[in-house]
Amino acid sequence: MRSHYCGELRSGHIDQEVVLCGWVHRRRDHGGVIFVDLRDRDGLVQVVFDPDRADIFATAEQVRSEYVLRVVGRVRRRPAGTENEELATGEVEVLGTEVTVLNSAETPPMQLDEHGVEVSEELRLRYRYLDLRRPEMQQRLRVRSRITQMLRSFLDEHGFLDTETPILTKSTPEGARDYLVPSRVHPGEFYALPQSPQLFKQLLMMSGLDRYYQIARCFRDEDLRADRQPEFTQLDIEVSFMTEDELMGLMEEMIRTLFRTILDVELPDPLPRLTYAEAMRRYGSDRPDLRVPLELVDIADLLRDVDFKVFAGPAQDPEGRVAALRLPRGGELTRKEIDDYTKFVGIYGAKGLAYIKVNDWATKGRDGLQSPILKFLPDAAVEGIMTRTGAVDGDLIFFGADKANVVNEALGALRVKLGQDRGLMAEGWHPLWVVDFPMFERDAQTGRWMALHHPFTAPKEDQLDLLEETPGACQSRAYDMVLNGTEIGGGSIRIHREAVQRRIFCLLNISDEQAEDRFGFLLKALKYGCPPHGGIAFGLDRLVMLMTGAGSIRDVMAFPKTQSAACLLTSAPSQVDPAQLNELSLRVKLRA
Amino acid sequence: MRSHYCGELRSGHIDQEVVLCGWVHRRRDHGGVIFVDLRDRDGLVQVVFDPDRADIFATAEQVRSEYVLRVVGRVRRRPAGTENEELATGEVEVLGTEVTVLNSAETPPMQLDEHGVEVSEELRLRYRYLDLRRPEMQQRLRVRSRITQMLRSFLDEHGFLDTETPILTKSTPEGARDYLVPSRVHPGEFYALPQSPQLFKQLLMMSGLDRYYQIARCFRDEDLRADRQPEFTQLDIEVSFMTEDELMGLMEEMIRTLFRTILDVELPDPLPRLTYAEAMRRYGSDRPDLRVPLELVDIADLLRDVDFKVFAGPAQDPEGRVAALRLPRGGELTRKEIDDYTKFVGIYGAKGLAYIKVNDWATKGRDGLQSPILKFLPDAAVEGIMTRTGAVDGDLIFFGADKANVVNEALGALRVKLGQDRGLMAEGWHPLWVVDFPMFERDAQTGRWMALHHPFTAPKEDQLDLLEETPGACQSRAYDMVLNGTEIGGGSIRIHREAVQRRIFCLLNISDEQAEDRFGFLLKALKYGCPPHGGIAFGLDRLVMLMTGAGSIRDVMAFPKTQSAACLLTSAPSQVDPAQLNELSLRVKLRA
Repeated sequence: MRSHYCGELRSGHIDQEVVLCGWVHRRRDHGGVIFVDLRDRDGLVQVVFDPDRADIFATAEQVRSEYVLRVVGRVRRRPAGTENEELATGEVEVLGTEVTVLNSAETPPMQLDEHGVEVSEELRLRYRYLDLRRPEMQQRLRVRSRITQMLRSFLDEHGFLDTETPILTKSTPEGARDYLVPSRVHPGEFYALPQSPQLFKQLLMMSGLDRYYQIARCFRDEDLRADRQPEFTQLDIEVSFMTEDELMGLMEEMIRTLFRTILDVELPDPLPRLTYAEAMRRYGSDRPDLRVPLELVDIADLLRDVDFKVFAGPAQDPEGRVAALRLPRGGELTRKEIDDYTKFVGIYGAKGLAYIKVNDWATKGRDGLQSPILKFLPDAAVEGIMTRTGAVDGDLIFFGADKANVVNEALGALRVKLGQDRGLMAEGWHPLWVVDFPMFERDAQTGRWMALHHPFTAPKEDQLDLLEETPGACQSRAYDMVLNGTEIGGGSIRIHREAVQRRIFCLLNISDEQAEDRFGFLLKALKYGCPPHGGIAFGLDRLVMLMTGAGSIRDVMAFPKTQSAACLLTSAPSQVDPAQLNELSLRVKLRA
Repeated sequence: MRSHYCGELRSGHIDQEVVLCGWVHRRRDHGGVIFVDLRDRDGLVQVVFDPDRADIFATAEQVRSEYVLRVVGRVRRRPAGTENEELATGEVEVLGTEVTVLNSAETPPMQLDEHGVEVSEELRLRYRYLDLRRPEMQQRLRVRSRITQMLRSFLDEHGFLDTETPILTKSTPEGARDYLVPSRVHPGEFYALPQSPQLFKQLLMMSGLDRYYQIARCFRDEDLRADRQPEFTQLDIEVSFMTEDELMGLMEEMIRTLFRTILDVELPDPLPRLTYAEAMRRYGSDRPDLRVPLELVDIADLLRDVDFKVFAGPAQDPEGRVAALRLPRGGELTRKEIDDYTKFVGIYGAKGLAYIKVNDWATKGRDGLQSPILKFLPDAAVEGIMTRTGAVDGDLIFFGADKANVVNEALGALRVKLGQDRGLMAEGWHPLWVVDFPMFERDAQTGRWMALHHPFTAPKEDQLDLLEETPGACQSRAYDMVLNGTEIGGGSIRIHREAVQRRIFCLLNISDEQAEDRFGFLLKALKYGCPPHGGIAFGLDRLVMLMTGAGSIRDVMAFPKTQSAACLLTSAPSQVDPAQLNELSLRVKLRA
C-alpha cells in the first residue's frame, strides 16, 4: 500500500514517485495551496496539494487533523528559504498527485500537534491510542522494543534458553499479596498469579536447563505507591554451576553491552562494588545514587558523653546511629529551606534535623559557627565534627541521631534531595553492585527474623555455622545492581541443599507443616540432585524508564493502569455476569 | 566452576585438563575401575576413576544416580575397541583427578538412564524436574527457545515492535470462557485474563505503531479436550497499511525462514492457497492434511433420484451433501476394519458408513462390485460413481450422505485416519493457506449468525452490500495457515470503520447497549482515525510440537497442566486462607 515511511524521505529521494500512508498531523492553507504534514511511525513529511488539480485539491480541502490518508506524489526540493531544519525531512516536500481518505477522524480530545499543551494523565490513559501517537511515546515504545531485543540476543548468544513458566500457578511467597484466580474445575480452589517465576526458575535448574532466561510478567496486588504497577515485567535469569563472581561478571557485561548499543555510553568495567555495610554507612541506603557527591559521616564516638540526650542517647545505643552530612555552600540555605528539609526528613521518621552553619571557622573557630545545638557540644566534639566532615566556611552540616534505620532513611533521602535541589548531581550513569547483604533483618513489630531478600537465598558458605547462633551477623550471597539511585536488578546464589533450606525456614518461623504445605515440592525437589545455582532479575520497566529518561514507568508501558489499578481505556476491572460467578462457586459479599 | 560442557568433548580435547559439572547418569564398576557417565545439558561423557588414587576412588565409590559432581580430569582416547559410536563424545573419556560431590540424590522415582522404560504422564508431571532432565525433553525446550529466537529476529529485522499488552484486562470475547481475577481495590469487580491480545493489538495500530508483535500468553477456561492447555502461547502479529496479500507474503516468508533455519527444510514459495469452499469440497475440512492423497468427490447429482432415501434425501437437500471417498487397495479391508471405521465416523455424527468394494470392475462390471447398498443404485449412478472416483479393481469406495457439515466432518476425519492407518501419508511438510472464509456460520441450535472468525474480521470490500441481505454468502478477509492438518496460524484484515463494525455487531445480535458495554472503547477509538490494519496469530505450542515431532503440546512446555487444569508439581490450584477471600469481598459457595 505504500513505498516509503513519511519520516524517511530525504534529498536523495527527489524526483522519485512515492506512496505514503499516515495521519494528518496538521493542515495549513497558504497562498491558495494546501500543506499537510503527514505523520507515520517514522516521522513527518510535508505534502503539498496544488489547486490546479481540482479533484485532488477538493479531497485535500476536506481533510482534518488525524484523518488517515494514502498519498501518491513526487518528492521535490522545498523552495529556497522554506526548508525546515527541525524536521528530518525538512529539505524536501511531496507534491501530491493522488490522495485517498482511508479514514476520517473526529476532533481528538487532546491535541497531538503542539508540544506545550499539558494534558491530564487521566485523559492520556483514557485515550491511550491517541496519546501513543505522540512522537515521544512512539520513541519510548520503540526503544523498549530495542532494549528487549538486545538483551535477548546477548543471552541467546551466551547459551541461555528462553523458557516460559506458568502464569496460573501456586502462590509464591515474595512478601506481597497475590492476585488470585478462582478455578472452575476445582470449586473453592484458586490459582495465584506469580509475583516472580522464582521457584520455577530454580526448578528449571534442577531440571538441568543450565542457563535460563525469560522476559516474565509478574503480578503484585499491592497498594500502589508512587510508581508501581499491578503487573510489571522483569528480565528473569538463572544459571547453574556458576559462582556469584562469574554471574555478576556476565550480567554487568550484558548491561554494558546494552548501554553501548542503545545509548552509545560506556559503563565502567568492572562495575564498582560496595558492601551493604559501606553503602549504609556512606549513603544511608543500599541503593545509593552515586551522582550525588555528599556522604554520611559517623560521629557517634564523638558524642557519646555529651550532655545532650538527642545525640548522646543514640550514640550510646547499639542500634542507634549519629551521623553528619556536610552540604558544601549550604550556608546559603534560608531558614525556610531548612524548615522544609526538616519536614522532609520527618516523612522518614526523623524527629528533627539539627544543623551547624559554618560561617567563619577559619578565623573565628567555634564563634564562627551558627547553630541552635552548638551550646550542647563541647569543643572536642565540635572540632571532631569539623575535622571528620571536612567542612569549610560557607558549608552547612546536617545531623541525624536516632535508631540506625531512621538515620539511614532520613539522611539517605535528604542526601539525594539536596543533590537534586542544589544542582550537585553529576552527569551520566553511575552503576554499582551492592553485595554482602545480611541474611536477615528483624521485624520492627514482632522482633522476628525476616529474610532480607527471600527465603531461598543462600547464606555465605563460611558463615553456615553462625546461622542459629547469631543470625543477624550472617551474610547472604545476594547482590543488587544499582543505577543512579534505582535498584535495577537483584539476585543471589540460592540454597541447593535441603538441610540448609529447612534451617532457613525454621529461622524464619515457618513451621515444618507450613513449609510442607507451601514449599513441599521444592523441598522434595532438593532431594534429587539439585545443582548449585543462582540468578538475578532486572526490572525491565524501570530500566527502560531510566534509559529513555521517562518520568514514570507508566510512560514506558503501552497500556498501564492507574494508582487504583484500573485501566481507564477498557474500564477494567468491571462487574461480571452472576452466572459466571455461579460457575466459579463464588458469591460477592461486600463489606458494610 | 567448569571449563567445558560434558557433551562437547571430542578427540581434539585429548590431553587437555578439563573441569566438568553434571549429574551421574550411570555408574558402573568394572575390573576394579569405576566408570561414571556424567551428564549435563550438552550430553554425556565417560569419566574413569582408577583405584590407584585412593581418596578420589573412595569418593567415586559413594556416588549414585543423579548425584551432582564437579570433576577435574584429563581427556584421553578410549582404549581401542571400547569407543562408543552412539555417543557424540564416544571417542574419548576423562580420567578423573579430582572429584567433589556438589549434591547427593535419593533414588529417583523414575529412571532417566533407560529408554525403554515407560513412565506414566502423571509421574512425569509430578516430578517434572526429573522428567525434564531427559535428553529428549531438553532437546525440545532447546528447539523451542531457538524457534522463538528465530521468529523474533525475523520480525525485529522487518521493523516489528515487540510490545507488551496487559494480562489483567477486560473480558475479550473470543468465544471461550474467561479466567477471572477478583479486584481487591474495586470490590465486586473482576479483571479477565486475555484470551488473546486481539483488541489491544488493534488499539496499537490505532496508536500508529505500524508493526507489532508479541509472544503472548493467552488463557481460556475451557473443558480441556485432547491437547489444550488453560494457558498457551501465541506469536501475535498486527500491521497497518498492508493488504492481505502483502501480509500473507511476509508471514509465509517468516515460516519458510523458520523451517530453513531450524529444520533445514525448504517449504514451497509461494505457499499454495485453497479457498474455504474448495478445502471443504475436496478434504471435508478447512485445515486439510495434504499429506493424505485421498479426496472427497461430490456425487449428489448422480443420486438425486435413486430409490434409496439415505442417499436421495441429502442429495435433494440444499444443506445436504453426498460424497465418495476412494481408498486405493481398500479391497483388503476386513469386515472388522470396516465396522471400526463405521464406529469412527459415528463420533462425528455420521449415522452409517456405506461402501462399495471394487473386486473386478474391469472384466465383470457391476457384478464385480460388492456392497450392501449396490441393489439400490441404478447402473447410471454406479457408472457415474466409478468414473468420477476413478476407482480401479482392488479399491474400496466409502460414502457419506447427510447434512453437509456432518459429511465433511465424518469423511474429512476418515480421510486422515485412513491415511494414517494405511500408510498413505506423504513424507515431509505440506503447508497451505486457506482463504475466502464465510463471514458467518449459523448456530445449529439458535439459527443465529455467528462470526466464523471473530467479530472484528473485515468482510470483503466488494461484498459489503451483501452483509444484511445474504449474510451467509458474504466472505471475510480472513486467512489460516495450515500445516499437515493442523491450523498453525489464523488471522484477518480487521474492520477499521466504525459504521461497518456496528453493522457486524448488529448482524451478530449484539445490541447497541451490549456493544457499548463490551466494546465501547473500540467503537470510540474507531472514530479517531483508525488505519486499515490486519494481523495473524500463530499457535506457538503447536508449531513447536510439530517441528519437534512431539506427541502433545504438553511435551513442549516446561510446566504444563493436566486435563483438569491442575499442576501436579506445585499442587495448583489450591485452597486459600479465608482472610484472603475476605479481602477480596468473596465467599466460596459450593454447589450442592
